[in-house]
Parts: sequence; C-alpha cells; structure tokens
Amino acid sequence: MNYKRKVLIIGAGRSTSSLIKYLLNKSEVEKLHLIIGDKSIDTAKKLILKHPNATAIALDIFDIELRRKTIKDADIVISMLPASFHIEIVKDCIKFGKSLVTASYVSDEMMALDKEVKEKGLVFMNEIGLDPGIDHMSAMQVIDRIRDKGGELLLFESFTGGLVAPESDDNLWNYKFTWNPRNVVVAGQGSAAKFIQEGKFKYIPYHKLFRRSEILHIDGYGKFEAIPNRDSLKYRDAYKLHDVLTLYRGTIRRVGFSRAWNIFVQLGMTDDTYVLEDSENMSYRDFTNSFLNYRPYDSVELKLRSYLDIDQDDILWEKLEELDIFNPDKKMGIKNGTPAQLLQKILMDKWTLKEKDKDMIVMLHKFGYKLNGEKKQIESSTVVIGDDQICTAMAKTVGLPVAIATLKILNGEITSPGIQIPISKEVYEPILKELAEIGIRFTEKEVPYLGYNSEQING
Amino acid sequence: MNYKRKVLIIGAGRSTSSLIKYLLNKSEVEKLHLIIGDKSIDTAKKLILKHPNATAIALDIFDIELRRKTIKDADIVISMLPASFHIEIVKDCIKFGKSLVTASYVSDEMMALDKEVKEKGLVFMNEIGLDPGIDHMSAMQVIDRIRDKGGELLLFESFTGGLVAPESDDNLWNYKFTWNPRNVVVAGQGSAAKFIQEGKFKYIPYHKLFRRSEILHIDGYGKFEAIPNRDSLKYRDAYKLHDVLTLYRGTIRRVGFSRAWNIFVQLGMTDDTYVLEDSENMSYRDFTNSFLNYRPYDSVELKLRSYLDIDQDDILWEKLEELDIFNPDKKMGIKNGTPAQLLQKILMDKWTLKEKDKDMIVMLHKFGYKLNGEKKQIESSTVVIGDDQICTAMAKTVGLPVAIATLKILNGEITSPGIQIPISKEVYEPILKELAEIGIRFTEKEVPYLGYNSEQING
Repeated sequence: MNYKRKVLIIGAGRSTSSLIKYLLNKSEVEKLHLIIGDKSIDTAKKLILKHPNATAIALDIFDIELRRKTIKDADIVISMLPASFHIEIVKDCIKFGKSLVTASYVSDEMMALDKEVKEKGLVFMNEIGLDPGIDHMSAMQVIDRIRDKGGELLLFESFTGGLVAPESDDNLWNYKFTWNPRNVVVAGQGSAAKFIQEGKFKYIPYHKLFRRSEILHIDGYGKFEAIPNRDSLKYRDAYKLHDVLTLYRGTIRRVGFSRAWNIFVQLGMTDDTYVLEDSENMSYRDFTNSFLNYRPYDSVELKLRSYLDIDQDDILWEKLEELDIFNPDKKMGIKNGTPAQLLQKILMDKWTLKEKDKDMIVMLHKFGYKLNGEKKQIESSTVVIGDDQICTAMAKTVGLPVAIATLKILNGEITSPGIQIPISKEVYEPILKELAEIGIRFTEKEVPYLGYNSEQING
Repeated sequence: MNYKRKVLIIGAGRSTSSLIKYLLNKSEVEKLHLIIGDKSIDTAKKLILKHPNATAIALDIFDIELRRKTIKDADIVISMLPASFHIEIVKDCIKFGKSLVTASYVSDEMMALDKEVKEKGLVFMNEIGLDPGIDHMSAMQVIDRIRDKGGELLLFESFTGGLVAPESDDNLWNYKFTWNPRNVVVAGQGSAAKFIQEGKFKYIPYHKLFRRSEILHIDGYGKFEAIPNRDSLKYRDAYKLHDVLTLYRGTIRRVGFSRAWNIFVQLGMTDDTYVLEDSENMSYRDFTNSFLNYRPYDSVELKLRSYLDIDQDDILWEKLEELDIFNPDKKMGIKNGTPAQLLQKILMDKWTLKEKDKDMIVMLHKFGYKLNGEKKQIESSTVVIGDDQICTAMAKTVGLPVAIATLKILNGEITSPGIQIPISKEVYEPILKELAEIGIRFTEKEVPYLGYNSEQING
C-alpha cells in the first residue's frame, strides 16, 4: 500500500524549519506527504529542498476556494499563521472533518466552536509551541506528580526567555533579536502587570516594570533576571491553582538588561501610540534629544545623564553609547514613525543576529508545595541552544512539539476531542518523552522552600 | 410690544449659574425669557428661583419630539451639555434656523456642517467658556495687536488652572477639586505631551509629565507651576502661529503639587484601564500596598519610601499622610474599581470644597515677538476668585462669555455665520470689554525677551 497521509502546513515562517525537518525525517516510515502552503511559494520551496515527500504550493488563505480544496484534501492540518488568521481555517477543518494543530493562543472565537469540534470527534490542539506549549507541558507534569503524591501547591512561578547563546553573546546588553523585534520593543505595554505573592495581589505599571525584576539562577548558565508578564493569572483556571499563594510568570533576560532598557521607557522611546514630526529626517541624536529638555548650552549626553541621573562611569552609559543613540549622522529614514518604530530601527543595527550567531531558549519553573505537613520546593529548567540560523532554538522549541503532536494525533495516540491545550497527561507525557530524546529536556532539583523571598533574611 | 425673546438653555449643570444670573439680570431691559431644560426639572428650578422671566422644563434630549418642539420654539439656543451630546442639537438648530452657543470644543462632526450653517446665515459660536474661550479671546487680542504694529510672533505660551482661592487654601497640596475630579485624576494620560521650544519639537511621556513642570510668577499671587498639555499645537492653525519658535500650553498648579502627584503616577494609582481584585473590601492601606513589593518584614510606609526614594522629613511625605493613604480602617466600598476610581475616592475625602470655600481661576499668556529688529515680550494674566459655592470662579469664567456672546448674537452685534470659535476681533473685542467691566480683566506687562529660558543663564 503506497498511500501517503497528507499533512498540510499553512504558513512557512521562521518557526516551521524544525517542524518540517522532523516530519520529513519520519516521512518514509510514517508514510507522510507534506503540503507546505505559503503566500510565497519560494519561501515554502526553500524549506523542503526538493524532498520527494513534500510539495510546496502558493496558498493565499483569502482565496477561499483554494483554501477549502487544500484543506479538504489533507489528512491533518497545521496552521503556523498568526493567531488572527486562524478562524477561517478552523471553520473549514470542522466542515471537512480534519484535525488541527497550532502553536497559538486559543481565541474566544475559537473556543466558541468547542462543541462542534467535539461532536465531530476532532482534535484541535493549540498552544503547543514553546510559550505557550512546552511551558504548559513541563509545568503540568510536575504539578500532577505533586498532586498525585497528595501534595498541595503553594507557589508556582514560571519564566521563559529567548536570548542569544553564550558563544554568540558579544554586546554589552547580552541580547540580540531572536524573534520579532517589534514584540520586544513594545513588550509589557498596556495595563499593569498583575500577579500574586503570598496571597497578596500586586500590580506594576509599565513605567516601573523594568525596575521590578527578579534574579534567577540556572545551573551551568549563571544569573538571569525576569520581569513579570502582564498575564500571570492566565492559567490559574487551566492549572487549577486557585488556592496557590504565589503565582508569577515572567520573561527572562541577562542581568542588567532591564535596568538599561528602563532608560528607553523613561525617555518615552518605546511609545507606539503617536508619530514624531518629520521622523524621516531625524538623526539618531535628534531622536534622543526630542525627549529631553531644551537647554542649548548642554550637550544631549549631559542632558540625558542629568535627567535620568546616570553616572558617567556607569556601565549603563556604555550600553547606550554602544547603540549609537547620540550619532548625529545616522538618519532614521522612516516616514511618520512612532518612537517605538524608530527605536526598533536603532536596535536592529546592533542586535540583529550575525550569520554564525546562535540563539538560546531558557525556561525555569518553581513549584512550592506542602506534603505531609512539610514545605518543599522543586525547580525545573531547560536551556536549548540553536543549531544554526535555520534550526534556531526558537524554531526547535516552537516547531518540534507541534510536529510530534501532529503525528500522534494522526496515529491515534492523542484522541481527546475538542479545542485543547496540552495540559493533560495523555498529551504531555509522550510529547515530553520524545522532546527529551531529541535533546529538549528539563533538569529538576529540590531546593529549600522559601516562599516568595528573593533574598535570604539576615535579620 | 410685550414679546420676549426666548433663550433656550439646555443642561443646568454647575457651570450655568452665572450664565443664567447674567441673562436674568438683563431680561427686562433686553426682553428675554429663559427656558432652562434639564433632565432633572428640580436642578433647573433651583437655578431660576421663581424669576418671572424664566421657565424650568424637564428635557431629556433623547426625547426627539420634545427636543425639536423646544428648539423650534426658541429664538436662540445655548447647549451646556457635554460635547458628545451636541450633534443632534446642532442638526435641529440648522433645521429650524436657530443660532447656537456652546462652551465645548468643535467636533469634526460639527465642523462638517459648517457649509449648511453658513447657507442658513446662522452663527454657531463654540469654545466660548474659559479654556477654551477666554484663553482664545485674550490671546488673540494681544497677537492681533502685535501683528497690527508689524511685529512678528516668536513665542506663545499659555497657562490656565482651576485652583482653590488663597483664603480657602488650607491643605498641604494647595489644591481642592473645583471641577470634575475624575478629569484631574486622569489628566495627561494617553500619548506624550508635544510642544515646540525654540524650533525643536519636544515629547514628554505621561510618567515623566509631573517632573517636567515650569515655574510661573503672577504679580500679587506668587509662584505657580505648570505641566504641559497634550495638545500644545492645537491652535497653531487657528492662531496662524506656523513660524513661531516656541509653542506651549500648560495647566497651572501651586508649586509642589506635581512633585507630590508624581508619586501616584509612579505607583500606578492613576491608571484607569483595569480593575483591582476585590476593590470593594480594600482598605486605603491595602490599596497603597498593592503597588509595592511583597516584603512582610517592612511596613507599607517604609516600602513606599524606599521604592520611590522619599526622605522621611520631606514635605512630600506629609502630603501623602494628609490624604490618609496608609489608613487600614477606611474601606474603599467601590466594586470593580480601577486604580483611578479608588484614588479619586481617597482624594475626595480631603479635597472637596467646604461650604464657605472659594475657588480661583488663574490664566497667564506669554508673547514673545520681534518688532523693528528688537525682541520684546508681553505677559498677560488674570486671576478670578469665586463669589461663593454657586457663582464659583469656574461658573463665572465659563458661563459669562457664553451669556454675553448669546445676547450679542441675538442683538445682531455678532453676525459672521458658520461654525465659529471666538478668535476674530468682531467677537473678542466687545466680549472682553464687557468681561472687564464685570471684573474679569487681564493685566499686561512688558518683560525682557528671554525666549524659552526658565532660568537666567549665570555662566
């Protein structure tokens, strides 16, 4: 029997390289044929390198007829498009009875279709990338184990970061863009960050976020810092953590990043809500000066230092100079640019990965719990380094769980129907096992229970 | 001839007392009968005190039939409703050929009807309260005079504030609510404040606004401070100030207010975009603590002082204590409250005007110009103190220009048709003259031209 099962992958963006590679490697044994559909057929072609078990097609998802025909023809569908494009694909998958896998957050619109998906016996697995994805699975595995032993959760903290690998880390910020730069520039904006510490709700406004970081240690990789996400309470229901005293989710950076980034926040350079006059002809120096007082007898440098109280021998200052923000000759060249867009331009000059650079994913969970009257704490972490600029750590950690889940749904190993996220044993056990086999594995250690207490108390 | 001309006043809010009083005082001589329409007939009745030349009616502007009948029956219409309610009234006034006066900003929706209004020969005079209103008139009078002499404008700065009168100023903030408290709590939020200083565009984000104040002096009243408005460039077209080097509009407070208010901004207490958990049962102390670190061995006071680096003997600290923000016994009692709503509650305990308290309006303009090769500067200012809690300075300065303009339109002294604001001589000369006669007058003085230069240069 020569029939190959058709896996339709919609969207051939940066995160699909490892996903496609994994499925192609299994394509003979598992009898798979991949259809890679992207608006640009060249992008799709580049990823399959003429492999006999794959076909690249030009697919504009707004071409309804083609979209429906392609989905109807597939055995299972993976959508790697941005979440906002999913809903039409979801409806087609229901119509033609195809299961679906995505790495995106479940929208309310999608959740409303849960009953229909269940009635058709389909599995729509979402949030199965890195964050969300590996974070769900690795956290729930430990949480379930603690609960199975009769333990009661007291604390859950979870941190993730996309960074540059130590061997490619050659700037003062210890940071490069390994994902969408825009998301990094506007990160944390909007309502205050909200979390729970020892039973107390805490709120941090955006302009204070980068001064309220926490210090983290990961064996073998040293010190990191984390700033709180806006959504620390997001999975309280899904993880059943209603009685937990501390609930905190954060984003990881190298120590010192946030303190320096805070300068941009204080100046107003990360604002994306208005455009600057004549932004196209501004120099980097003009841009910086537009947020400072008019004081014609002082230099831009002096004004900035005195405004934000920066010592001239502070390493912070070297970080700012490294980015060339005082350069009077470099022009922005962006029409009607917002401060955030112009800052992104400045940063991309310096923080774009070089050809040989590798990225790094860091994830750390802390679980505090009570078992037989005793308080205990487990820390679980993973560090993943990219292979190269194609199979980056980001592409691997986002794409591999998607690929593994897809094959397991296709093979009937994951069967619970409906709109799902990977928080049940049926899903996370086999996927985490396979991820560990291919090098994405968590290290656990027991530490003394501290509750929320970033530093020891010394009296 | 006994016919009385009917002046319909829609909305009998706080700013209408002086307006109605003025028109009633003239009602015999000018043959006027006022119709005061408000959703609450009792509110309307209270303001006319059974005067024979006035009738109070219950008027819900969403009752289309009654609204149209009432407008059709009037000789001229004044709307003192919030600007968002104006458009239906505007359309009815066009339909029935009635001129209209409002103290509100001209909306784009209203501006689109300019041609129709002109064709019917009607005068729709807007922005003729205090700010906007008296600011337009008093500024344009000086600007036109400078231009008539052949002078060229180099600098225009304009500041307005609603404050408590010196005789009623009995708290450490030198501030009480004399207008809508909510507007004060959320003032300045949104995009950055934008202005021009010596030809350079400057932008200040909200979280820095209250640390970038300017110091002002007004003879006889001492020192004030001003924080920039978001819209300093708003009247650049209307005033024809395209070539001016410095353009700045600001809000006036007593010195030290902004430095203390900044503490609330830094904590995140002025945020109106999300609700706090269980806000109803929070104490004032809980509210303050929710923005601070979890640190169980330190008091809320100590945490706040160390977080924002406040010396314990700083007057700032006394200001915070005066507001009782550390009180563990006072409860919020507001369900699903935003930080801004809860802060407003705390402030209203202390900043509400007492029965005998008087308010004060302060306005200051600075005009820099070049005449016959010489640089000169004029400062023009007014201070208005309220009579009592009914005829407040705010009610007088908002209501009297509206009343005077209404009568002048009715009497054919102001005739230019269309959607207007009071920036032409025909309008501002007679109105400013009459305002001066009843005590709202500007004092002018010449000062050396400094350009934008808050302090003298001492080398």
